Amino acid sequence: MCGIVGYIGNDQAVPVLLQGLEKLEYRGYDSAGVAVFSEDGLKVVKSKGRLRVLSDLLDGGKALTGTLGIGHTRWATHGAPSDVNSHPQVSEGGRFAVVHNGIIENYLYLKQHLMRRGVQFVSETDTEVVAQMLEYYDKGDILETIEKVISKVEGSYALGIINADHPDCIYAVRKDSPLIIGIGQGENFIASDIPAILSKTREICRLKDNEIAELTRDGVKFYNADGEPVEKEIEHIEWDIEAAEKGGFEHFMMKEIFEQPKAVRDTITPRIRNGHIVLDDITLTAEELRRFTKINIVACGTAYHVGVVAKYAFEELLRIPVEVDVASEFRYRDPILNENTLMIIISQSGETADTLAALREAKRAGCRVLSVVNVVGSTIATESDDVLYTWAGPEISVASTKAYSTQLAVIYLLALYIGEQLGKFTQEQLSAYIAALEKLPEQIDEMLKHKENIQFFASKYFNASDMYFIGRNVDYAASLEASLKLKEISYIHSEAYAAGELKHGPISLIEDGTLVIALATDARLFDKMMSNIKEVKARGAVVLGVATEDKKEIAGQTDMVFYIPKTASFMLPSLSVIPMQLFAYYVASMKGCDIDKPRNLAKSVTVE
Amino acid sequence: MCGIVGYIGNDQAVPVLLQGLEKLEYRGYDSAGVAVFSEDGLKVVKSKGRLRVLSDLLDGGKALTGTLGIGHTRWATHGAPSDVNSHPQVSEGGRFAVVHNGIIENYLYLKQHLMRRGVQFVSETDTEVVAQMLEYYDKGDILETIEKVISKVEGSYALGIINADHPDCIYAVRKDSPLIIGIGQGENFIASDIPAILSKTREICRLKDNEIAELTRDGVKFYNADGEPVEKEIEHIEWDIEAAEKGGFEHFMMKEIFEQPKAVRDTITPRIRNGHIVLDDITLTAEELRRFTKINIVACGTAYHVGVVAKYAFEELLRIPVEVDVASEFRYRDPILNENTLMIIISQSGETADTLAALREAKRAGCRVLSVVNVVGSTIATESDDVLYTWAGPEISVASTKAYSTQLAVIYLLALYIGEQLGKFTQEQLSAYIAALEKLPEQIDEMLKHKENIQFFASKYFNASDMYFIGRNVDYAASLEASLKLKEISYIHSEAYAAGELKHGPISLIEDGTLVIALATDARLFDKMMSNIKEVKARGAVVLGVATEDKKEIAGQTDMVFYIPKTASFMLPSLSVIPMQLFAYYVASMKGCDIDKPRNLAKSVTVE
Repeated sequence: MCGIVGYIGNDQAVPVLLQGLEKLEYRGYDSAGVAVFSEDGLKVVKSKGRLRVLSDLLDGGKALTGTLGIGHTRWATHGAPSDVNSHPQVSEGGRFAVVHNGIIENYLYLKQHLMRRGVQFVSETDTEVVAQMLEYYDKGDILETIEKVISKVEGSYALGIINADHPDCIYAVRKDSPLIIGIGQGENFIASDIPAILSKTREICRLKDNEIAELTRDGVKFYNADGEPVEKEIEHIEWDIEAAEKGGFEHFMMKEIFEQPKAVRDTITPRIRNGHIVLDDITLTAEELRRFTKINIVACGTAYHVGVVAKYAFEELLRIPVEVDVASEFRYRDPILNENTLMIIISQSGETADTLAALREAKRAGCRVLSVVNVVGSTIATESDDVLYTWAGPEISVASTKAYSTQLAVIYLLALYIGEQLGKFTQEQLSAYIAALEKLPEQIDEMLKHKENIQFFASKYFNASDMYFIGRNVDYAASLEASLKLKEISYIHSEAYAAGELKHGPISLIEDGTLVIALATDARLFDKMMSNIKEVKARGAVVLGVATEDKKEIAGQTDMVFYIPKTASFMLPSLSVIPMQLFAYYVASMKGCDIDKPRNLAKSVTVE
Repeated sequence: MCGIVGYIGNDQAVPVLLQGLEKLEYRGYDSAGVAVFSEDGLKVVKSKGRLRVLSDLLDGGKALTGTLGIGHTRWATHGAPSDVNSHPQVSEGGRFAVVHNGIIENYLYLKQHLMRRGVQFVSETDTEVVAQMLEYYDKGDILETIEKVISKVEGSYALGIINADHPDCIYAVRKDSPLIIGIGQGENFIASDIPAILSKTREICRLKDNEIAELTRDGVKFYNADGEPVEKEIEHIEWDIEAAEKGGFEHFMMKEIFEQPKAVRDTITPRIRNGHIVLDDITLTAEELRRFTKINIVACGTAYHVGVVAKYAFEELLRIPVEVDVASEFRYRDPILNENTLMIIISQSGETADTLAALREAKRAGCRVLSVVNVVGSTIATESDDVLYTWAGPEISVASTKAYSTQLAVIYLLALYIGEQLGKFTQEQLSAYIAALEKLPEQIDEMLKHKENIQFFASKYFNASDMYFIGRNVDYAASLEASLKLKEISYIHSEAYAAGELKHGPISLIEDGTLVIALATDARLFDKMMSNIKEVKARGAVVLGVATEDKKEIAGQTDMVFYIPKTASFMLPSLSVIPMQLFAYYVASMKGCDIDKPRNLAKSVTVE
């Protein structure tokens, strides 16, 4: 998730670009760069590190003249953070410069195709492919060229393009990644998000998928994918700058909850090709996979709860024993590990101190280490034998949402990948799993449309002092995460219990009016959960049930129900967690808590 | 733990015996019996089942005449509940009848010794050995005979003895099992506990170890082990009958907390011989033990927390991977099991429905099943391949205390046994572990003497609405049990956390005055725990620290400390749990809760 800004007007471009990028730094901050047309032609300056580094290089922008340019702040996906991998990326002949947000899924194929035809690449980025293709396919009609290139590209992209043959134009095109056009007086803008340009203009147009915008100083023209002109409505933005940074949401957490469909899609789609799971990132062969007699998973907090789901998924699909530990315990319990252990490390930041220490412990014991990480080039990523990245983009809210969802997605991909490599299922089964996996983003999207149901429930019970989450199997795993989310941001003492274990002690806490949230999405255990719901109802509990949409009978036993779509049983937490995130959010909001920065907590825990 | 009553006087004996036994039924209820001298000589009537069955057989006692007799209600230890294994046990020649509470540790040796000399045995009990020995060694001087027999017997016993040659006497002797003498007017009594005779007399004498009492209608004479007469003081009992049933304690729970030193000793001592762990009960050979590549442990509630400790103990001592599950989850997660899996099942009652179902699941998968059970002949004991009994006696309080402690003791014994069989340690190491194990009862006893410190702490904080227990490694395992205990009986929402995991979410709940109980007994992790204590102190928490007595520096960081003795690290939960049980008890008591029968809970959960 990167930030894009473009400016064409009569002012010096770079100060405007830097000012805009500053507002987008929450979208990525491992490198930044700008490209402008000055009197001497196309000039590119870029640098690894935060925007500050680039700004200092450019003396706040003054060092580079020119009134047209594009800028970028990066969140590394393909290629580690470095100067050469920073954007803008420039074509070999220097005629095209491109800034990009998103992931080009077939970039490797396209890159090889061009390389075989003699094109020289300098970076590891997927973005450079776009710049090179523009130059390679360009026959003079720039619109035709862009159309041709995007017809060949698979994946998601928001692109800002400048071309030496059209030094008075900026071109923009997008698919599945946001891009807006800002309309000013004698100046126009492109940006991946409103805050970047809000101090300059409040009139914007939103590009639709595959629409192309052509910006000049005097105006903006829009074309569809066939090159036909289209009319766009101009939208007037009322938000203040703070609201704009959160995409109009009141908090980053809600913004990130709503980013989940896209984040999950970005994480899954590039790794499914022709009905197979393709994990280019990892080097584990089928032979190596066969060696593993055990899988150990280590993580902390929310990532640990992903590990708990992973145990169910791996054991069900692969029949390999899995042990899941919180990192701080794993390190000191002298775990039994050897070279036949596959160690999976899960961390959003890739810097979690306890988790990193566990990784090193596992390496010492001779384990093969595969990590699931959100930050390219982080320490955990660097020290692992293999890395599978989550493409969630930067997560600002301390309470993790999209990191959890994308980590789960990676776990499913990995389980299916290993299963396929080891011949654990038929092509038919694999296809069914892949279909379920690909459906998750739209299912999450659909549930988010009913957020008011959860808001209503939260409004009735937000002042409860204690709450309990119960579930069995994967529903228990999701309960753990649901409870943690509520704890973190609402400061309500909540606890998750394996539903069948309640009667062995904790049920003594249930009294008239106690709030119990019962996750009963797993069809295999639905009847058992209904019994457990009756147990707590009989003691006076108020129960919110979460069930799949075919289990309408739950309504008779609960005070309220939130229905979720059906999917493969081990993938259920990806869906059931959504109403739970919303519930935690609304409860905390109604209590007036500082949602994005809960007390006592830090985003990335880099101390033991 | 059985119940004993004896009567000598002018009334018909059996109705008095039945009335007394009724008050002792909490000590055991799987069979009952009486022996009297009637006009026709020694008569014995006994029956499997509750006392009601015997009473019906005897028409409430009226069916059997005679004014001298002994009675017994049984809690099976050696030999399953059956008519023949019921007490009284009678010698082959019919001249001695004996009732017994306790365990004769060397009974097998003594039995074989007599059998080689032609004595015929009919039962599987250890008690029959005493009856047979009395007859075998008797040369006419009954006191000398008793002295000779008890000099040969090892273990614990309270014995009531009648002899055909002395039809106007009852003899009583005890060691490490309680026995009292009741003094009446023209009638006297023996009993294992005061309630049995309280409706008849309030004047009692307490027998000391190896003292012998000789009761006639007119009086009681006492002798020491050398046959010399001793004077005993008579104690006047003020208790009402309800208090008497609880041994003077206000609740069964506290009585059972105080029974732990004895229960743990009873569980351990018979299984240590000549510096080795001897588990006569189980048939697993070293060769079979070598086969196991994995140990699975399944249990519910408190027994599950024993399983959590067991994982640490087994993995540390044996380096065999251990997986612990709550039974209700285990059953439905399709666990990976095979014939190389040793399945350990832990249940106080031996009837826990979820656990029993898990056992059957494991049997179907071909696992060898070893159970740790408190009730002889229970379903789980019957269906297991091997059983190791805890000798805790009946546990009346719903909140388990002595069952937990004795289950832990069995786990240590088993770990050391397997370790010895597999050659995992030197004789020196084994001796050190055994020494530590044998020291536990007195260490528990010593801690109980300082219960007022905990009572004081509880008095300051009993009205807290939430509490947190933190610990690492075995201290985390003990925290789980500490938290459950508090939940069960005080209805306070408490939660146990791995201390290093706090900062990954739950620490947001800590605010000014939040009560945190920090178990920091594991020397290897003491410094880490000190950091965690500082973390919560910095957020305003009130902290009770529990540490070993050599770690005085903890006092500087906590509001109060309870020190426990040192032991082997994996045995620490046996000690640290004691102040935690006391804490839960006092908090619940100060809140006025129904401690022995907490709301919503049943002692033995025989439904899923």
